Amino acid sequence: MTSLELVTIGTELLLGFTVDTNSAFLGQAFAEAGVRVARRTSVPDDPEAVREAVREALARTGFVVTTGGLGPTRDDLSKKVVADLLRLPLVFRPEIWDELSARWARMGRTINDRNRSQAEVPQGATVLPNRWGTAPGLWIAAAEGVVVMLPGVPLEMRGLVTHEVVPRLASMGRGLVVRSLTLRTTGIPESLLAEQVSAVEDGIAPLTLAYLPSLEGVDLRLTAWNLPPEAAAAALQEAAARFRAVVGNQCYGAGDDDLAAVLLAACRSAGLTLALAESCTGGMIAERITAVPGSSDAFLGGEVCYANSAKERLGVPPRILEEHGAVSEEAVRAMAPLARAKFGADLTVAVSGIAGPSGGSAEKPVGTVWFAFADAGGVETRRVNFPGTRHEIRARASQYALFGLLSRAKSAGAGGMGVARLNTTLP
Amino acid sequence: MTSLELVTIGTELLLGFTVDTNSAFLGQAFAEAGVRVARRTSVPDDPEAVREAVREALARTGFVVTTGGLGPTRDDLSKKVVADLLRLPLVFRPEIWDELSARWARMGRTINDRNRSQAEVPQGATVLPNRWGTAPGLWIAAAEGVVVMLPGVPLEMRGLVTHEVVPRLASMGRGLVVRSLTLRTTGIPESLLAEQVSAVEDGIAPLTLAYLPSLEGVDLRLTAWNLPPEAAAAALQEAAARFRAVVGNQCYGAGDDDLAAVLLAACRSAGLTLALAESCTGGMIAERITAVPGSSDAFLGGEVCYANSAKERLGVPPRILEEHGAVSEEAVRAMAPLARAKFGADLTVAVSGIAGPSGGSAEKPVGTVWFAFADAGGVETRRVNFPGTRHEIRARASQYALFGLLSRAKSAGAGGMGVARLNTTLP
Repeated sequence: MTSLELVTIGTELLLGFTVDTNSAFLGQAFAEAGVRVARRTSVPDDPEAVREAVREALARTGFVVTTGGLGPTRDDLSKKVVADLLRLPLVFRPEIWDELSARWARMGRTINDRNRSQAEVPQGATVLPNRWGTAPGLWIAAAEGVVVMLPGVPLEMRGLVTHEVVPRLASMGRGLVVRSLTLRTTGIPESLLAEQVSAVEDGIAPLTLAYLPSLEGVDLRLTAWNLPPEAAAAALQEAAARFRAVVGNQCYGAGDDDLAAVLLAACRSAGLTLALAESCTGGMIAERITAVPGSSDAFLGGEVCYANSAKERLGVPPRILEEHGAVSEEAVRAMAPLARAKFGADLTVAVSGIAGPSGGSAEKPVGTVWFAFADAGGVETRRVNFPGTRHEIRARASQYALFGLLSRAKSAGAGGMGVARLNTTLP
Repeated sequence: MTSLELVTIGTELLLGFTVDTNSAFLGQAFAEAGVRVARRTSVPDDPEAVREAVREALARTGFVVTTGGLGPTRDDLSKKVVADLLRLPLVFRPEIWDELSARWARMGRTINDRNRSQAEVPQGATVLPNRWGTAPGLWIAAAEGVVVMLPGVPLEMRGLVTHEVVPRLASMGRGLVVRSLTLRTTGIPESLLAEQVSAVEDGIAPLTLAYLPSLEGVDLRLTAWNLPPEAAAAALQEAAARFRAVVGNQCYGAGDDDLAAVLLAACRSAGLTLALAESCTGGMIAERITAVPGSSDAFLGGEVCYANSAKERLGVPPRILEEHGAVSEEAVRAMAPLARAKFGADLTVAVSGIAGPSGGSAEKPVGTVWFAFADAGGVETRRVNFPGTRHEIRARASQYALFGLLSRAKSAGAGGMGVARLNTTLP
């Protein structure tokens, strides 16, 4: 693969005021276009530091992409430095000036001559039009190599990379790319997942496999290294099919698939409506479902019954809360059908637990969560002990609830409402 | 200030599989300890690349901190490279071996001799105990300068920096630090905020001011550069007090203060209970409130009445929904007191809007959100048009609702429940 180096410019990056998300985006975009980032250097908004970093990077790889230090607020610092380094004069480009003037006019202002330097670029540079902001990108091919300069504002940088830089890279690479495909699993511990996939894992070379555990489960990332694009895509698809076959229902999607969106699609195809009764998750499950556009065609609503009084108003008998507590099988077994009846929904989950950091006991430690799933076939309860902080416990409990709903929605969609269940391991 | 360079090691960083959050943490921690990060270099897990990056950085600043490439999975790549570069032999340290053996034993396993290299360190290195993971940190003072080696796992790196590295840096710096103080504002546009603070902004030198707009409002970051710690703290406190005085109630906190936590504190001190009726925010407000530990002492619960049927079940007359629609002043004016009565709460907000991406009309475009705040004094409604994506509209609406509740809780706490309001600009 062709190599390049990244130089990211910004004092704020080094002070840690800004997390450098640009670099991750650039690394992925370039790898997918068949160009490897060999090194990344971050320097402050200091002309000498920028100059040295670009000079050294050019000497090593002959191909440098910079971000930041472009645009009016920083006085086009990096543009001047790079022009000077490549011994190219800055020349005024009327088309940039016209674009700037039009932009100022749209904001009801008149541009003045002090801004003329914004329309200057190193001689011979290709101007990459920035439809997302002020400062255009620059593609400068000089004797020392190629320097591509991009603004640091993430939205502008991403627009320019996708629409201007990647298409130009495609013709430069040697036709070999790095591509990944991620399968999303939940409800299965990493160690058990590793056992399940061990039979197919050995046969995936030259692909590699990485386990990526998170609060939503364990993602499996398959990566094809240095293959032609078509061969990479075919190898990834073929391997993904084999992994899906052994992982089964614990694999709920691929790429950026969100479990809530997958659940809503399953409800739609089975003609089911959803409702919730949330205590410890406090609205997190409802928030995840309603974050999906169009959720209203399957999701009716939810009750965040946080205080005991709110559970009683839903209809939970006070006796249950007194005798067994709000975090109990009896409480969720009452809540789920009450929420189902109240909202007139087909499928409901009720959740009550101890998210911490306090409130735990020997019998019910922090992390104890009770779930009840109710549908036309009845009510099913589960108790899980989740590890982690308050946020982690709530996020894991939300994911568990969504996955439990998905299993039941698929089961109903497959014809067997209520009693028949998919052969699904809920941990 | 003393300078150092960071070298972050990991092929995944350059491929963009991992966002480099470590660097932001390190930049801040070092600046606060009086040490400036002069440059940051990221290289793949390749011995020659690591060697060159560390060598060059040492030559420039004589002080290098590395992350990554330590520990069993990468065969202690960077440890060997650095030892070789500094011409230090690797020596076996029994205390590391004992610690490793004990860790393996706790996992029910027996360590074997293949793992001996994990207990080897460059001769003369100070071992920084890693209570958060396997591989200890190393502080190596050699003729060429100081190399501090840290694992790349964020939790382990942070623990080592906070407890082992920063205390050692404090004695090395020249006593000058970079420190920031952030004031959090909401409910006021950046341009208006800039006008408000212009009177005090001019007098803050040598501090600097940055505006940081986000979905939660606009943060004002004051930064003291290269001052002794006490002088920095005093200058920041003094300036913050002047900014708070001109910004008024739109400033709800400082640092990491979360608006939901500030609201809960205000409710507690005023002896008020809270409830919600959420449509377009779909549980997001409840989720933010219940994310705060101990929220149950003021928050009773909420209704996520997403579908019209759910609004009717809360008690909204079907006639209102038919005549005015679910996104209307009439709908929220009905919802808020119904939720208040249902949960028996003192203070309630009802929210109904069009989060998009579809569902808008000329009269009610995407981003239209109606709010109703209900307390003992009655009901007050507001209509706001929020810009942005579905997520941004929901997040801005949630923040607006929390801020409206805070204003009313403070007003009630100040004695005037209901009619009397703080002089607060809700945009």
